[in-house]
Amino acid sequence: LTLPPLRIALAGLGTVGGGVARLLAGQERLLALRAGRPLQLVAVSARDRRKDRGFPLDSVAWFDDPVALATAPGIDVVVELIGGSEGPARRLVEAALAAGRPVISANKALIAHHGASLGRLAHEGGATLAYEAAVAGGIPIIKMLREGLVGNEVKRIYGILNGTCNYILTTMRESGREFAEVLAEAQKLGYAEADPAFDVDGIDAAHKLAILAALAFGCEVDLGHVHVEGIRHVGAQDIAYAEELGLRVKLIGLAQLIDGALEQRVGPCLVPLEAPIATVEGVFNAVVAEGDFVGTVMAEGRGAGAGPTASAVAADLVDLARGRALPPFALSAAQLRRLPARSLEARRGAYYLRLMVVDRPGVIADVAASLRDEDISMESMIQRGRAPGEVVSVVMTTHDTTEAAMRRALARIAALKAVVAEPRPIRIESF
Amino acid sequence: LTLPPLRIALAGLGTVGGGVARLLAGQERLLALRAGRPLQLVAVSARDRRKDRGFPLDSVAWFDDPVALATAPGIDVVVELIGGSEGPARRLVEAALAAGRPVISANKALIAHHGASLGRLAHEGGATLAYEAAVAGGIPIIKMLREGLVGNEVKRIYGILNGTCNYILTTMRESGREFAEVLAEAQKLGYAEADPAFDVDGIDAAHKLAILAALAFGCEVDLGHVHVEGIRHVGAQDIAYAEELGLRVKLIGLAQLIDGALEQRVGPCLVPLEAPIATVEGVFNAVVAEGDFVGTVMAEGRGAGAGPTASAVAADLVDLARGRALPPFALSAAQLRRLPARSLEARRGAYYLRLMVVDRPGVIADVAASLRDEDISMESMIQRGRAPGEVVSVVMTTHDTTEAAMRRALARIAALKAVVAEPRPIRIESF
Repeated sequence: LTLPPLRIALAGLGTVGGGVARLLAGQERLLALRAGRPLQLVAVSARDRRKDRGFPLDSVAWFDDPVALATAPGIDVVVELIGGSEGPARRLVEAALAAGRPVISANKALIAHHGASLGRLAHEGGATLAYEAAVAGGIPIIKMLREGLVGNEVKRIYGILNGTCNYILTTMRESGREFAEVLAEAQKLGYAEADPAFDVDGIDAAHKLAILAALAFGCEVDLGHVHVEGIRHVGAQDIAYAEELGLRVKLIGLAQLIDGALEQRVGPCLVPLEAPIATVEGVFNAVVAEGDFVGTVMAEGRGAGAGPTASAVAADLVDLARGRALPPFALSAAQLRRLPARSLEARRGAYYLRLMVVDRPGVIADVAASLRDEDISMESMIQRGRAPGEVVSVVMTTHDTTEAAMRRALARIAALKAVVAEPRPIRIESF
Repeated sequence: LTLPPLRIALAGLGTVGGGVARLLAGQERLLALRAGRPLQLVAVSARDRRKDRGFPLDSVAWFDDPVALATAPGIDVVVELIGGSEGPARRLVEAALAAGRPVISANKALIAHHGASLGRLAHEGGATLAYEAAVAGGIPIIKMLREGLVGNEVKRIYGILNGTCNYILTTMRESGREFAEVLAEAQKLGYAEADPAFDVDGIDAAHKLAILAALAFGCEVDLGHVHVEGIRHVGAQDIAYAEELGLRVKLIGLAQLIDGALEQRVGPCLVPLEAPIATVEGVFNAVVAEGDFVGTVMAEGRGAGAGPTASAVAADLVDLARGRALPPFALSAAQLRRLPARSLEARRGAYYLRLMVVDRPGVIADVAASLRDEDISMESMIQRGRAPGEVVSVVMTTHDTTEAAMRRALARIAALKAVVAEPRPIRIESF
């Protein structure tokens, strides 16, 4: 029994597209064996036809317009690696799905912004949309959620979803240097973009979290209700104080279902040093899922780069070649719930707080009173070194309270004369 | 479009069988939604029909003979949770596969001993044999290997595959107590069996490793060539010295393909404290796969227990219900390679060695000379405390050498008059 080849069109030949092309060439025999049929690259589209990409494209049809891949004959699946939530990427994916042509995409922005409508389009067109590469790179987390843990009601899912931020936080801790300096170095090393906002402000992690939440909770992607904070305001001293307290700063994306409402947030968190996720360092990503039967499962690996992303695309391609495609969000579009968003104000947990205060008698008492007035009890306090009349750091952690109470207390504290900078709390998670 | 239910027969109603029955009942709606059809328990077989199991079995057919489930009418899949590599478990699985009836099994001993022949039987019968629950409990590692990482040539796979051993080693480290005492406690807590040999001598881990190796390298299961050592000879002081050296003792199962030959071994190893696997503690399991495109991926979770095992069985059931079954070892039986076994003597790496020696001048010089004569260079040496004429510990680590050279050096060392106990080296892995 010989099956015909799966004929693949590749839109985008940047770092990731190049990785996929190299994987398809390099693993040709292996893939054919495992998929039960050849995976054949038959068409590509990219911006510059003449650029030398280090691999031959002679036997492959060239398209100047990627959107043409959606309906051009002789193609079984379109792999969209253009990126961006609008423009040609969106037009290509929509046109392909509408034409009933399966799409594999690594485009987290596209899926996060338009996942719900693309899911419906895929359903109507009778096509698949697969996107293993869109979340956590080489970690097969999409497959793990919608297949491996399918017998569980997921209670909570969280992870380190942005390698750039994790690299910066790890390097800040190891070197004691400040954010701006480490970011500049990361940019030089190619770990951060020239415009770093997308990564360091938490947007990229938010895209991935919204996708994970939809899969974990069987609901429509709801990017608009992800609360997003980045890591720009995390100081080298926060990281050092945290270690002293047995905690580590990580940019965490977290989604959980509480009383039927969905909480989704990205932001710096303090996690116990003993938590498995605390030891995920550098550019690595990790995702933790908590299921009612399985308990806690964590997967860790490279979240970006040509090789890991190509590996994830290959998994989707082989599933398709094996005839094992699933609906984009595991359930059919009509079965996906729309969950109410849970206000972050309802979050219950502990907080870390660093205040910059003028060192004079009574300051700590005033801060303590502000917390007490909101029924928040302090767990620990560190004020290192005395410098009467100068600005010093005061660090404290609270017992469990609510985000609402914390915000009210912070407003009181910010109004104190001796407090000279806006206090920025960091949530403590008891993973 | 309404699909008929998947009719399930359950053989074995012990801890795991009970967990599966509870999952099928408790997640009935969720599973039907996700699988696109109901998963219905229609028949069971267990030893004692009258035993109260905490869940109703009224509407379910009872079979005294589990093997009858292989061909009884009205059944779509048999879930084998009896255990053991021979006896009724084997007879049931063989009969079902021969009859073309799909089998899902959590039985690592059965798959490790008879995987190759069962794979052929499944192929001939046109049935599936799925066994996600057989390796690392709730961690969907089988799916990860044969689907999620399908685009990779796996270079090496290793893991903590036995929760009992990991619990004992973790507790020994935390409490400073010796193996026998901690084992007794683990038995009381239900983390170790009355006869612990299967776990602490590495046999259970060897079963799982042989299965993982077959999947990772596309070869027939070859349990006979797994080199197996347990943890009985690991002393509390080895663990303490290791920490001092920045290393942690773990029972590691490791398989790698070198020059076309397969190395498979289970044994205590020293891993760097910074390695992700070093922080996998207590009853948790973890598996690390190294692929040529994806790099390093690790998955961690509970490796045993009713809930995690039931979660893995459910994943296989839903795949089957969705019509997404794969051949047992991803490739068809005829495509699986038979790989030559690589001798452990060829292993290249560093070693830790604790010697019990009579404290008198010249002992260390004699030991050092034994190593030098085999071209082994010492990396570090610790001899704590002096007790002239008494027996003391001498601990050393070597630079990279071969297992063969190490064995020759050990024979020389064991022959020294001052060395009073058989030296037991522990391999150091640079994960």
